[in-house]
Amino acid sequence: MLGSDALDILFNKARTHNDWQDRDVDTVLLTKAWDLTVMGPTSANCEPMRIKFVKSPEAKERLKPALSEGNLEKTMAAPVTAIIAHDMEFYEKLPQLFPHTDARSWFAGKDDAIAATAFRNGTLQAGYFIMALRAIGLDCGPMSGFDNAKVDAEFFAGTPVKSNFLINIGYGDASKLFARSPRLAFDEGAEIL
Amino acid sequence: MLGSDALDILFNKARTHNDWQDRDVDTVLLTKAWDLTVMGPTSANCEPMRIKFVKSPEAKERLKPALSEGNLEKTMAAPVTAIIAHDMEFYEKLPQLFPHTDARSWFAGKDDAIAATAFRNGTLQAGYFIMALRAIGLDCGPMSGFDNAKVDAEFFAGTPVKSNFLINIGYGDASKLFARSPRLAFDEGAEIL
Repeated sequence: MLGSDALDILFNKARTHNDWQDRDVDTVLLTKAWDLTVMGPTSANCEPMRIKFVKSPEAKERLKPALSEGNLEKTMAAPVTAIIAHDMEFYEKLPQLFPHTDARSWFAGKDDAIAATAFRNGTLQAGYFIMALRAIGLDCGPMSGFDNAKVDAEFFAGTPVKSNFLINIGYGDASKLFARSPRLAFDEGAEIL
Repeated sequence: MLGSDALDILFNKARTHNDWQDRDVDTVLLTKAWDLTVMGPTSANCEPMRIKFVKSPEAKERLKPALSEGNLEKTMAAPVTAIIAHDMEFYEKLPQLFPHTDARSWFAGKDDAIAATAFRNGTLQAGYFIMALRAIGLDCGPMSGFDNAKVDAEFFAGTPVKSNFLINIGYGDASKLFARSPRLAFDEGAEIL
């Protein structure tokens, strides 16, 4: 069981940030967040999430045309923007990741199973990744307001990888935060049967 | 930044469990996990995840016909099985959850945006939920091997809620664990641009 300070860092006091301190993100931290994230559970350990970390000014310029107006300024200002994506040929890695049986055959040629598994498990891993970033002291600002097709054409052309959403990463400027929005109570979204 | 003990609980030493100690899960913990989970970020704070906690023997019997053979025994034995689902009319709650603008109009009538947002954000929340369960000392066993249509007919008939996947919840029997499967290295799934 984690203590209240850790729960605050992960959940209760963590906030989505739109404004960033002028402070670089060490690439060692991005590797550390990845290494934590991949420990999380996925179907048959398929780990379909892929990430392009957009960090250099040149890479940011490649991303810029795909951003929606409301996400433009904060994304160009963020120290790093992660393009969260998933590999539609994730099953080709199952002999490596789930070696004790022929899990590749559960997916190869089955387009509906591939699409659902890639999106579901890639997004689950993105949830773990957001928690991992917070766990190692980084702030993030996830967003889905951008042109996925443009991002795919610019960053994943000729590959089976498809973009999912974006996460700005850095050290947030807490002075710019608004009050937190209301949350759904247990009884509004859950039930014990 | 969390300490190594907390990182072990969430990521490095946490494992997917298939065997369960004979120990009840206090429903207060399920509420606590929910209250942590909903603090996590979602698009426009839409919080589309819904959960049915299948805990009583009667409810488990209702779930049983939808389970795949490989998931049957462990699921019937688990103290609780959470049906992770999402509300395809999540946007009806946006006036409550995102009150400062008319976010409902971004979705109402737009079936593709609804489907992608419900699945993406409901699954992200499921990732936070798995971390929240671990954070409060519970173990889990997520699985997608079941008949979604049967679960929807049995538990969500006449509602706009659709099942996503299942999570067995309890206190795992660590003596029954196998060795951990290999994980994708950073260079196999990520790149810094």
